[in-house]
Amino acid sequence: MTEESILANVRRYARGIGDDCAVLKPPTAKQDMLLTTDFTIEDVHFTRDWSAERVGHKAVARSLSDIAAMGGRPLYCLVSIALAPWVDQTWLNGFYSAANDLLQTTKAWIAGGDISHARQLVVSITICGAALKGKALLRSGARQGDLIYVSAPLGGWKIKTVIEPRLDLGRKLVGKASACMDITDGLALDLHKLGLMSNVGAALEEVPLLPGATLDQALYDGEDYELLYAVPSAVRVPGIRIGVITSGPAGVVNYEGKPLEPKGYDHLLHRS
Amino acid sequence: MTEESILANVRRYARGIGDDCAVLKPPTAKQDMLLTTDFTIEDVHFTRDWSAERVGHKAVARSLSDIAAMGGRPLYCLVSIALAPWVDQTWLNGFYSAANDLLQTTKAWIAGGDISHARQLVVSITICGAALKGKALLRSGARQGDLIYVSAPLGGWKIKTVIEPRLDLGRKLVGKASACMDITDGLALDLHKLGLMSNVGAALEEVPLLPGATLDQALYDGEDYELLYAVPSAVRVPGIRIGVITSGPAGVVNYEGKPLEPKGYDHLLHRS
Repeated sequence: MTEESILANVRRYARGIGDDCAVLKPPTAKQDMLLTTDFTIEDVHFTRDWSAERVGHKAVARSLSDIAAMGGRPLYCLVSIALAPWVDQTWLNGFYSAANDLLQTTKAWIAGGDISHARQLVVSITICGAALKGKALLRSGARQGDLIYVSAPLGGWKIKTVIEPRLDLGRKLVGKASACMDITDGLALDLHKLGLMSNVGAALEEVPLLPGATLDQALYDGEDYELLYAVPSAVRVPGIRIGVITSGPAGVVNYEGKPLEPKGYDHLLHRS
Repeated sequence: MTEESILANVRRYARGIGDDCAVLKPPTAKQDMLLTTDFTIEDVHFTRDWSAERVGHKAVARSLSDIAAMGGRPLYCLVSIALAPWVDQTWLNGFYSAANDLLQTTKAWIAGGDISHARQLVVSITICGAALKGKALLRSGARQGDLIYVSAPLGGWKIKTVIEPRLDLGRKLVGKASACMDITDGLALDLHKLGLMSNVGAALEEVPLLPGATLDQALYDGEDYELLYAVPSAVRVPGIRIGVITSGPAGVVNYEGKPLEPKGYDHLLHRS
């Protein structure tokens, strides 16, 4: 692959490439701007036996899920890729095509990126989005007595092959949920984090499982990319009710009479 | 290093970390938004014998230079790092501290990022900035007869240890320069690219060299991070005049009576 052949590829999917920065219309004065960025790395977030399309989809879906968790709308995406020696033109086509396809289901598009090389494949996705001013869903607003929901059954890391970012649900929760985040590290650790940020505890009543998933997978595996949210009990929202926010101690999640250990996906340990 | 010890480090320099996205005030309706992202990778853009501070400075400077080239102002920075096994807490402190120090000389700040791990160290920096609406400096506006300038003598890849992003100069060129970019791939290739985007040629008259630099280094090495710009001859601007824009052929750069080969830094070849 030459640099020119790669750039020809990128230009097919990215508008406005060519200057040192992408020049874009900013969110409006009635909006807050959202920025999020995520790595997707060979042997950490995927293995070489995955299809190029699956890697492209996952890389973009991880960041879209962050926008969903804030109740936002994605606008622009930067796709950066450090190519490993084994990547060829066909792989790269599949990767960009899948990334682009997923973005097109939202109204966002690829506005730029960077290309380099490394010994293992490294993708870095940045998404710029917008939320209603002052209305973005944070992790810090949950109050005692709020009901806790998840968007779908959990334990999907080894079971689900496609991540569906919950953008529609996230926007429906704006003005309703008191706190929201996406589940990337496992329910136990993520609910612990939400509790810490909100200075509350949680009583977990039930853990909805995907067919074939175990309780341990749902609690500790992570990579579900479902939304986890707290909602005042009088407010109706879609989702599966899993528990209730308690007065504390902050971050402590009780389940079946005892506190859950706040363990889950560790970003510094290998997994594959 | 534990994930918590690293996050404690990041929180020292990054405001507002904790939610799934950073929530930020967007550029105003009188501005365009600028987005740029750059990898800085071990054994590609630096080697392990560099100090942590030098790596942190370079990583951020590369993206600031892109904002400078557009005549913009940096606002927010996302710092993502995939840690190699050799990175320790002291190194990480030095890296973030230098990245933060450079950003503080502008008015930008670290608004978020991601942390993961890889076999070699990979940094990905994204900067969001702003330019006066419709006034961002592009590569595509140079016209026949415009004078060509660079911001300083060239050939600095092996000589300069610190990159100074030319943010003040970039903003001074707004409304004056007809085209602008930063020199990352070498003068020969970058002037060729500016010519292609503007559909013009160039006659190079002289190449200002840093003390100790050779002509070949200035033409082909890249990594100068100086600005290259075209300006109508009646307009006065700071900088060193190096030539004149010609009618074409598009992208052809003549020097000492013959066309320069459009070669330079190849983003897919190893260098160290």
